[in-house]
Amino acid sequence: MVSPVTPSSGVLAPLGLDSVRISPGFWADRDARVVIDHAWEWAERVGWIGNFRGEPRRGREFSDSEIYKLLEAMAWSGHHGFDELAQTVARAQEADGYLNTKWSGDRYADFEWGHELYCYGHLIQAGVARLRAHGEDTLTEVVRRAADHVCARFMDSGEVCGHPEIEMALVELYRATGTERYLEMARRFVERRGRPALADIELGREYFQDDVPVRQAESLRGHAVRAVYLACAQVDLAVETGDKELLRATEAQWEHALARRTYITGGIGSRHAGEAFGEDFELPPDRAYVETCAGVGSVMLAHRLLLATGDVCYADHAERVLYNVIAASPAADLRTFFYSNPLQVRTPGEVVDGVNPRAESALRAPWFSVSCCPNNLARTFASLAAYVATHDDGGVQVHHLTPAEIRHNGLTLRVETGYPWSGGVTVRVVESAGGPSRIALRVPRWADGARLDGRRVAPGYAQVEGEWQAGDEIRLDLPVEPRWTRPDPRIDAVRGCVAVERGPLVYCAEAVGDDPPLLEIEVDTSGNPVEIDSGRELEVAAHRHAAVDAAWPYGMGEQAREGEDAGSLRLMPYHRWGNRGPATMRVWLPEIPPPPLG
Amino acid sequence: MVSPVTPSSGVLAPLGLDSVRISPGFWADRDARVVIDHAWEWAERVGWIGNFRGEPRRGREFSDSEIYKLLEAMAWSGHHGFDELAQTVARAQEADGYLNTKWSGDRYADFEWGHELYCYGHLIQAGVARLRAHGEDTLTEVVRRAADHVCARFMDSGEVCGHPEIEMALVELYRATGTERYLEMARRFVERRGRPALADIELGREYFQDDVPVRQAESLRGHAVRAVYLACAQVDLAVETGDKELLRATEAQWEHALARRTYITGGIGSRHAGEAFGEDFELPPDRAYVETCAGVGSVMLAHRLLLATGDVCYADHAERVLYNVIAASPAADLRTFFYSNPLQVRTPGEVVDGVNPRAESALRAPWFSVSCCPNNLARTFASLAAYVATHDDGGVQVHHLTPAEIRHNGLTLRVETGYPWSGGVTVRVVESAGGPSRIALRVPRWADGARLDGRRVAPGYAQVEGEWQAGDEIRLDLPVEPRWTRPDPRIDAVRGCVAVERGPLVYCAEAVGDDPPLLEIEVDTSGNPVEIDSGRELEVAAHRHAAVDAAWPYGMGEQAREGEDAGSLRLMPYHRWGNRGPATMRVWLPEIPPPPLG
Repeated sequence: MVSPVTPSSGVLAPLGLDSVRISPGFWADRDARVVIDHAWEWAERVGWIGNFRGEPRRGREFSDSEIYKLLEAMAWSGHHGFDELAQTVARAQEADGYLNTKWSGDRYADFEWGHELYCYGHLIQAGVARLRAHGEDTLTEVVRRAADHVCARFMDSGEVCGHPEIEMALVELYRATGTERYLEMARRFVERRGRPALADIELGREYFQDDVPVRQAESLRGHAVRAVYLACAQVDLAVETGDKELLRATEAQWEHALARRTYITGGIGSRHAGEAFGEDFELPPDRAYVETCAGVGSVMLAHRLLLATGDVCYADHAERVLYNVIAASPAADLRTFFYSNPLQVRTPGEVVDGVNPRAESALRAPWFSVSCCPNNLARTFASLAAYVATHDDGGVQVHHLTPAEIRHNGLTLRVETGYPWSGGVTVRVVESAGGPSRIALRVPRWADGARLDGRRVAPGYAQVEGEWQAGDEIRLDLPVEPRWTRPDPRIDAVRGCVAVERGPLVYCAEAVGDDPPLLEIEVDTSGNPVEIDSGRELEVAAHRHAAVDAAWPYGMGEQAREGEDAGSLRLMPYHRWGNRGPATMRVWLPEIPPPPLG
Repeated sequence: MVSPVTPSSGVLAPLGLDSVRISPGFWADRDARVVIDHAWEWAERVGWIGNFRGEPRRGREFSDSEIYKLLEAMAWSGHHGFDELAQTVARAQEADGYLNTKWSGDRYADFEWGHELYCYGHLIQAGVARLRAHGEDTLTEVVRRAADHVCARFMDSGEVCGHPEIEMALVELYRATGTERYLEMARRFVERRGRPALADIELGREYFQDDVPVRQAESLRGHAVRAVYLACAQVDLAVETGDKELLRATEAQWEHALARRTYITGGIGSRHAGEAFGEDFELPPDRAYVETCAGVGSVMLAHRLLLATGDVCYADHAERVLYNVIAASPAADLRTFFYSNPLQVRTPGEVVDGVNPRAESALRAPWFSVSCCPNNLARTFASLAAYVATHDDGGVQVHHLTPAEIRHNGLTLRVETGYPWSGGVTVRVVESAGGPSRIALRVPRWADGARLDGRRVAPGYAQVEGEWQAGDEIRLDLPVEPRWTRPDPRIDAVRGCVAVERGPLVYCAEAVGDDPPLLEIEVDTSGNPVEIDSGRELEVAAHRHAAVDAAWPYGMGEQAREGEDAGSLRLMPYHRWGNRGPATMRVWLPEIPPPPLG
């Protein structure tokens, strides 16, 4: 099966790229090939491909992994560049399987920061992708040799990599090849963590999830990308080894993080320092780090948990992240990217030419000195069809309501929808081999009042069982009216504020050029937001309360303010912000206190 | 004069340690000698003194500077350890004046991070302190040779140090010795900055104030300690060279930072990443970095601006920082310290034995891997008397209302007060050589209703002119009733919250052990806070609104909450928090919305 994740057991089984094709619409507009071409050009320009040719070493210690992410994206999408790039990588491999352009002369000297095993992880994922999408070839052989080298070197050592990644890759290589030592190596890497296996760095061992053993951790914590990559491996291992305790521990960590450490966009990472989760309810909108790659990892983790448990909450969350983190990172032309996805920007960015060394994210950049986001987006877009639907013995589940063609077990379905802009979804049976089967469509948690073929259905999976024939149709109608959303009062950073959502989309206010400052706006929530342009934009009533500048900003009594009726404030989907030039932006809008009751 | 800063001109002239003695009271309780003994023992234990003896190098690249700060503290306080430590340092100096235990074999290879010139700066300040407090000795010679080496090496180069510090030190060495090349060297270091002189690091050149020339900067910015140290040098230079433009630019930078980038405690540094100022109004209470050393630097800067301009606002601010940052860092026993001084702590710290590598600051630590705070506090406490009062042609100005004896020009004053706990201040004339002179007492900005000898006086300086005779008394009464303070509405992070102040003190709520969580408290501001224990603690009416845990913390409509009347919430001065074991804490208290008017 052509899918990044193929568990041998679980409540749901994936449908891969060979079963699902995304049709023109929201996600087809995010064309992996555009991002791949862009990233390939940049990787060459900055010398990260040249490193494999023995040119003077350029880039950070983990730059090899960017080439592997790019190879994985090329593998999923059948990109013409794959062979050439794979050959370049293959030629850099040493006789014993070792492969790293940075550390060749000084192997395994720095497990905290060296990223050697992390790089193998991405190499292995690229090889697995190629094996599944195409079959055995050069890269498969490179990957086997590298993995065998890793097993020989690390099976009985106590070492782990500061950046988790190889663990889930080895499980997948085991799934793809049946070689059990890869699973055992993954298991040992996961279980070694937190006993501890790494040095006590200034950011603390929590940074790389080496503070407590994986079964004892109560939440996702530390560096957000590392945390979700490790959790992916935990699920993969738990599924392959039948380890219910580990699966339950991972679910609990996810649940804790979701309830207390996740932004309304689905983004994670509250701190720039350590690119890390914060403490419970530490969710500042302005200093939100919300790395794009942490969003990629969240979708990977949610998908694994969905397959293992069948719980709709994971698909709900994957959708939130896809629309409000993954879709927000690239510009409309897919050639510049946000590294970080904050929920408030107070100062417009400066226009950046070329590489942006900093994850400031007031403006998108075409490339970064740590340029994981473009390549991670490329492999996500290239494999996105594998996240759309699953199957079980009874039939097919459609988790993501996007135009698509889905084939399984003699049944071919065509999903037609204008979602997320409109809420109508039609599933048309194109072919059927006959026999009874169930078609289940996900009804998102916010979709109170959804109807399936006219009858009211609750959030969860709306199912129809039938003996399908070509031409049959199912019609799901989701209410995508805009709604006000208020935060848990323990999230101090957005007290007194409200957000606007519509369907799966979070909205924001953006100010460009001479627009009135967003720092001084307050919205009137007594009415509902009004749709403009078929919901692509919204309008809410607002007042502008200009604060009077004072020499000292803490006064006795109320601070002096000058108010005026601002009429209306225009909102756009968060994923579309920052496409009109340097801008300020905010998702959380200060609310005019509502009139007293009674 | 025995003072860290002795400008040759300015509206006010300092009175040094030879003119002012602090008497028992709030500040005398912060005994520099206790901190010096503690820091001396630790500096020996961690090998930072051993570095000067040629022992295997330990500590960070700037650890020499800690020994110099300690020497400066010893010099001001006449500590018995001075000679021994100065000899140890002297023996490490090389023939050409170069002195650094880290970079001796690889001089001046890294101006961004090497800190060599920064270390000289602290060495020079220690030497100047010794010269003024004691006279020429070993360290004076070491310092001259080091400064001459710096002038020879850098007078015509384009280089500067990533961490400003040597600039103000060189101005002071010029003041202490009259050697003009030290002033010229300082001027060149200051003027070179921002053209730019340093590399474009990942944090950006703003980090070390190399983004724009000093005269063009509109605010203090970047790494907070670096920013205030550089601004100190700007004032020193402006004063010595009569450069009104530079003085005015520095005042404007200060004013901007004060109005938009400073916490209510007077603390600066909104970001852990880069230990930096944030953008305007980016003032999160929980992730406030507010390094203790940035507080030390703020007091140094405020004092310089006070001397240069005579503007009371600088003394007001120095007082705020002294009581709410400087006094907050050390524990009651002066043997553990906060590196960072946040305004909200959600998770109690874990007990730390020995060196704390991280500036987490949920608990104080006796030492840090970057252990600038204890030594910076030691030199501040040891020289604090030099900040209390000044003089001009007409008489004496008392800026800090603390028990003290002040001598100037034949007049000896004894200040008696229980401030900050009570508002009464008595100034008694102990000796007078006759002739008219003015005594001015600072009336803080919050002191609406202050009285001097019974008559109402406005904030600013309350002055009395007279021909003083022994036994004369002046009585100042300041209203130190607790007050509610509200933030500028543009400070998003504390929207809907209120703080409590009393006199110069900011208060906070602290929860230890089983106390109800502070995350769920709301205060009733319809009445006033009530004093307990003569104002050392306060009580305010409060409700507890426990949020109901949800799987997802963003809901439609109001979040579900369970409320109860919590009766009262006890507040303590912020500087006293964290002395009862692991605690949570908050300065900004969510406010129950007031009832509607009319």
